[in-house]
Amino acid sequence: MIKITLPDGSIREYEKNSTPIDVAKSISQGLARNVISASFNETTVETTTPLTTDGNLTLYTFDQPEGKKAFWHSSAHVLAQAVLDFYPNAKLTIGPAIDNGFYYDVDFGEETISEKDFPKIEKQFLERAREKAEFKMRSVTKDEALSYYKDQDNIYKVELIEGLEDGDITFCDHSNFTDLCRGGHIPNTGIIKAIKIMNVAGAYWRGDEKNNQLTRIYGISFPKQKMLTEYLDLLEEAKKRDHRKLGRELELFTFSQTVGQGLPLWLPKGAALRGRLEDFLKAAQKKAGYEMVMTPHIGQKELYVTSGHYAKYGEDSFQPITTPKDDEEFLLKPMNCPHHCEVYNFKPYSYKDLPKRFAEFGTVYRYEQSGELHGLTRVRGFTQDDAHIFCTPDQLDSEFKNVIDLVLYVFTSLGFENFTAQVSVRDPETPEKYIGNTDNWEKAEQAIINAAKDKGLNYVIEPGEAAFYGPKLDFMVKDALGRSWQLGTIQVDYNLPERFDLTYKGSDNQLHRPIMIHRAPFGSMERFIAILLEHTGGNFPLWLTPEQVIVLPISEKYEKYTEKVLHLLENSEIRALVDNRNEKTGRKIRDAEVSKIPFMIIVGEKEEQDGTVSVRKHGEGDIGTFTIEEFVVLIQKEIQKTLVAFNTNN
Amino acid sequence: MIKITLPDGSIREYEKNSTPIDVAKSISQGLARNVISASFNETTVETTTPLTTDGNLTLYTFDQPEGKKAFWHSSAHVLAQAVLDFYPNAKLTIGPAIDNGFYYDVDFGEETISEKDFPKIEKQFLERAREKAEFKMRSVTKDEALSYYKDQDNIYKVELIEGLEDGDITFCDHSNFTDLCRGGHIPNTGIIKAIKIMNVAGAYWRGDEKNNQLTRIYGISFPKQKMLTEYLDLLEEAKKRDHRKLGRELELFTFSQTVGQGLPLWLPKGAALRGRLEDFLKAAQKKAGYEMVMTPHIGQKELYVTSGHYAKYGEDSFQPITTPKDDEEFLLKPMNCPHHCEVYNFKPYSYKDLPKRFAEFGTVYRYEQSGELHGLTRVRGFTQDDAHIFCTPDQLDSEFKNVIDLVLYVFTSLGFENFTAQVSVRDPETPEKYIGNTDNWEKAEQAIINAAKDKGLNYVIEPGEAAFYGPKLDFMVKDALGRSWQLGTIQVDYNLPERFDLTYKGSDNQLHRPIMIHRAPFGSMERFIAILLEHTGGNFPLWLTPEQVIVLPISEKYEKYTEKVLHLLENSEIRALVDNRNEKTGRKIRDAEVSKIPFMIIVGEKEEQDGTVSVRKHGEGDIGTFTIEEFVVLIQKEIQKTLVAFNTNN
Repeated sequence: MIKITLPDGSIREYEKNSTPIDVAKSISQGLARNVISASFNETTVETTTPLTTDGNLTLYTFDQPEGKKAFWHSSAHVLAQAVLDFYPNAKLTIGPAIDNGFYYDVDFGEETISEKDFPKIEKQFLERAREKAEFKMRSVTKDEALSYYKDQDNIYKVELIEGLEDGDITFCDHSNFTDLCRGGHIPNTGIIKAIKIMNVAGAYWRGDEKNNQLTRIYGISFPKQKMLTEYLDLLEEAKKRDHRKLGRELELFTFSQTVGQGLPLWLPKGAALRGRLEDFLKAAQKKAGYEMVMTPHIGQKELYVTSGHYAKYGEDSFQPITTPKDDEEFLLKPMNCPHHCEVYNFKPYSYKDLPKRFAEFGTVYRYEQSGELHGLTRVRGFTQDDAHIFCTPDQLDSEFKNVIDLVLYVFTSLGFENFTAQVSVRDPETPEKYIGNTDNWEKAEQAIINAAKDKGLNYVIEPGEAAFYGPKLDFMVKDALGRSWQLGTIQVDYNLPERFDLTYKGSDNQLHRPIMIHRAPFGSMERFIAILLEHTGGNFPLWLTPEQVIVLPISEKYEKYTEKVLHLLENSEIRALVDNRNEKTGRKIRDAEVSKIPFMIIVGEKEEQDGTVSVRKHGEGDIGTFTIEEFVVLIQKEIQKTLVAFNTNN
Repeated sequence: MIKITLPDGSIREYEKNSTPIDVAKSISQGLARNVISASFNETTVETTTPLTTDGNLTLYTFDQPEGKKAFWHSSAHVLAQAVLDFYPNAKLTIGPAIDNGFYYDVDFGEETISEKDFPKIEKQFLERAREKAEFKMRSVTKDEALSYYKDQDNIYKVELIEGLEDGDITFCDHSNFTDLCRGGHIPNTGIIKAIKIMNVAGAYWRGDEKNNQLTRIYGISFPKQKMLTEYLDLLEEAKKRDHRKLGRELELFTFSQTVGQGLPLWLPKGAALRGRLEDFLKAAQKKAGYEMVMTPHIGQKELYVTSGHYAKYGEDSFQPITTPKDDEEFLLKPMNCPHHCEVYNFKPYSYKDLPKRFAEFGTVYRYEQSGELHGLTRVRGFTQDDAHIFCTPDQLDSEFKNVIDLVLYVFTSLGFENFTAQVSVRDPETPEKYIGNTDNWEKAEQAIINAAKDKGLNYVIEPGEAAFYGPKLDFMVKDALGRSWQLGTIQVDYNLPERFDLTYKGSDNQLHRPIMIHRAPFGSMERFIAILLEHTGGNFPLWLTPEQVIVLPISEKYEKYTEKVLHLLENSEIRALVDNRNEKTGRKIRDAEVSKIPFMIIVGEKEEQDGTVSVRKHGEGDIGTFTIEEFVVLIQKEIQKTLVAFNTNN
């Protein structure tokens, strides 16, 4: 008998050579049906591997990343099998699982494969899968392995095997197919119920352009057909919501190859939208006792050496700026914090003056390789909604709570309802890794946990994830497509106050170090707007959206009345525009729907006579006829619904 | 007889050998009394120089720069004479007139001179001046000149003379004093009625630190004692109003040696003030049909090569920023215009879409040598209130007028009432120097002149002062101390639209080049705020000032009532703070006066009982008791008086 410890800590006894599937069956038939992968003593094993010693066993289903990995890895085998069914001379190379599915790199020799071949391969894949063939691992000697692939003339597998140790080489067999493989499969192919070949792309053997070019076949598979359909729908929706596409269509921002990659140019509508977001946060921050400051976009190299940022960003980022005369070196600022420390250092403070809360929409520049740039989510210049709070240890608790309030206010005002938090604390086993005194750390970690608890956050504590200079709280939000984004961070810092020699006079008349809190609810304006675009599909909250109303006159006869309506709306601070093209009203309505303007106002003879407007709502259609004044009240109420004022205890 | 042409074009006949003073006498005795300098055929002459040919004569008084120059140059002779009276072994070197007065560089050998010596030298100066000695020029040969100074052991003058051509050397004699001199004096020393030695400083012979160090004596002199007194008062006032001093005292901005010279850090009160200025201009610009955009602070070097800015700023400015991987070079942007051209290029326009008016508070960086930096007026990073208007040639006229309206609105809202304008047009003699077609230039110059006339500006036209790419209009404002500052510029540009290939489709369905107008009413936010500080001495217009009201409770007993007052003020958007220190009310009033807060509200027992406030105005004292509501109305009216909304025809 062997003793198996499960993740919940329970220990069960099984006969020697029981398999993970046997263990699952002993727990429940439901579990046994869903288990597709396992790890034993932190090492991936097959679900059919006989267990011969005591140890820790974890069972995975498709819902877990480890389960998906085994599922997609196994699917790569089946894909290769199906490919060989059609192209028996194709040479297989490698075929790993990736974040979304898997790929297999194949040398097709003289042959080519394209989108039109996908259906037949998918069909063959499913037929092979339906064989319910088990994946079986077996050890082979290096000679056996080499000889197997030399017979097939497969130079790639031969090269791979030559890099392996004899005695450490395994093959995996299923059905009539064999592959060099380290293991980690689902029990049998029958579990794979749906497959989609996504695309093919060129890839060099071992990523080196001096080598042969291979064909990389990307696929994704699922245990249920419905899951594939949902995934493809999501992809389709994500494509429609791609912020780069929406940004162009809604004329929010653009990139210029002449100005430079990764350096967004904000077009009028985008700049106005961003301005409204900034004003929104400024108003809340003012209520919460923040003070705005403004600092330059460069600083002497020495400043970032002092702060430690040079060590972090220096060599891999934009290089120093030299000057023609005076022997000086500057850097584009990668962070605003050193500048805010110098703002703090402008004058001496007593404990009664604290906390000081300095805020700035500070644009920072960090080099990213051109291949890594992506729309507004990965750029070379971005604006942080940055603030630094300088406080006493006693104030940390309430300051942290206030920041959480502000972050939650920001999220809910922008329609992010689904979020979790992570509290990163010290690794208790390596206390020497962290700067600052233990009492303060203890206090700070407790303050963060208390605040998270107090505010009812859904949070996890991650020991060892704290930075060396302080613990932190990060927010993850889920967007409308279920994708997770890291947004908003609150970070305690004991380091910069040391490095910049920041002080305040305590009630004991002695000088003390303030604690610094870094925080940015949006994180980066650019990235946040990208996420917001994808989350809302461009249907921004009413308070934020570029145009709230579009006036559609039925003909130019109503120009004067249209002007009157527009004027009244503008006087009530409602953003409106007119579509006075010489087009049919139906066309104007369709175009307004496309541009996602929340309210359409139609004016014609009857409306002019009665002093009314006919109102349509985006995505809803006609909502009736109102006097202009009634409509103003209606829309203002709707705006207020989407944006409530921030309340603070400060 | 000779024919003398005067600046008004009139021609008068005089006997040969008449002097400029003779001419002045023939016109009026008053003029003759005031003439202190002259030029004949564009060459400086003495007022006593006999005129021997026909020619153009200009007479100068102290009110003109040329007159001041002769006055101060002559004063330098008298100063040197007075110095030699006390220090006969001192060696004179050079002694020119400067913008405000003059200096003389003297080698005192072993002796030193300091502030305590100034009164005796000034006294001696005036005694010498009272001699009414005439300045008389005489030609000397090089040998005579060298021998004169060799006898005195004056190596400096010897070196100067050695650099001169024989036959071209003149001495000037007055009283017992002789100096090597090119001429340009007042008639006699008696005209100098007031002298002040300002300070002494070290200066190297010929500015080269390898040479002997000399003592530079700075002085200023006037034809009336009253003028000196006024000048010194003005200096004193300017010192009090020095924006660097006020900026520190009012906690508006600071500089950090760690961040870098010439890179201002805006402290909370300064950032808020600047924000109000920006909001003020944004509101006016919105009414005037501008759209805000936002662009990065760097751009590829190629962008500025295309725009031509690299040729202008490249080598003398901040050097290119390189990157660790991709072979790219970036520059800190010295101008926003190239970026706005790329914003324009986002999409095609028809003539119906124009004008487009893109505005941005764009921070630009330009290298200045450290010795040239000065507070906020000469910095290395500054924010332009920039905008670029892209219009058709037909729209230029009205666009120019609209911009003038906006600039004048900005000036008057900020208390600058005294300004002039300069229209810079082509040099008619070198038409080939200018790019763009002649018709358009003609149109543009006429548009600017019409606009200036139409808006009743006090303007001069300066031929040849236009840039090669377009004509422009510059505004000069006079501040409260009578100093002139160049503020606000409107510039037509035919160049960048070419360089960036900007187009619009005309009514003829052909592509045309738009005309670009650059304009910045403030110029630079940093420099403008510096000038505004010195103009107002920190007493900002009520709408703009950091704190409008300070509440002074007589004791802590009135804390609750104080809170109530403060709350009501804040709800009415009035910026208020409380002085709740444990100090006597008199002290609190004095401190509030120093910090230039416009309104003081005193609350005590009587006020709490009656629901009133006792109000004092900065610099005026008690203005009575009001209910809180009455006071809110009063201050809101005062604010509205200092800021009226912008009206536009757009």
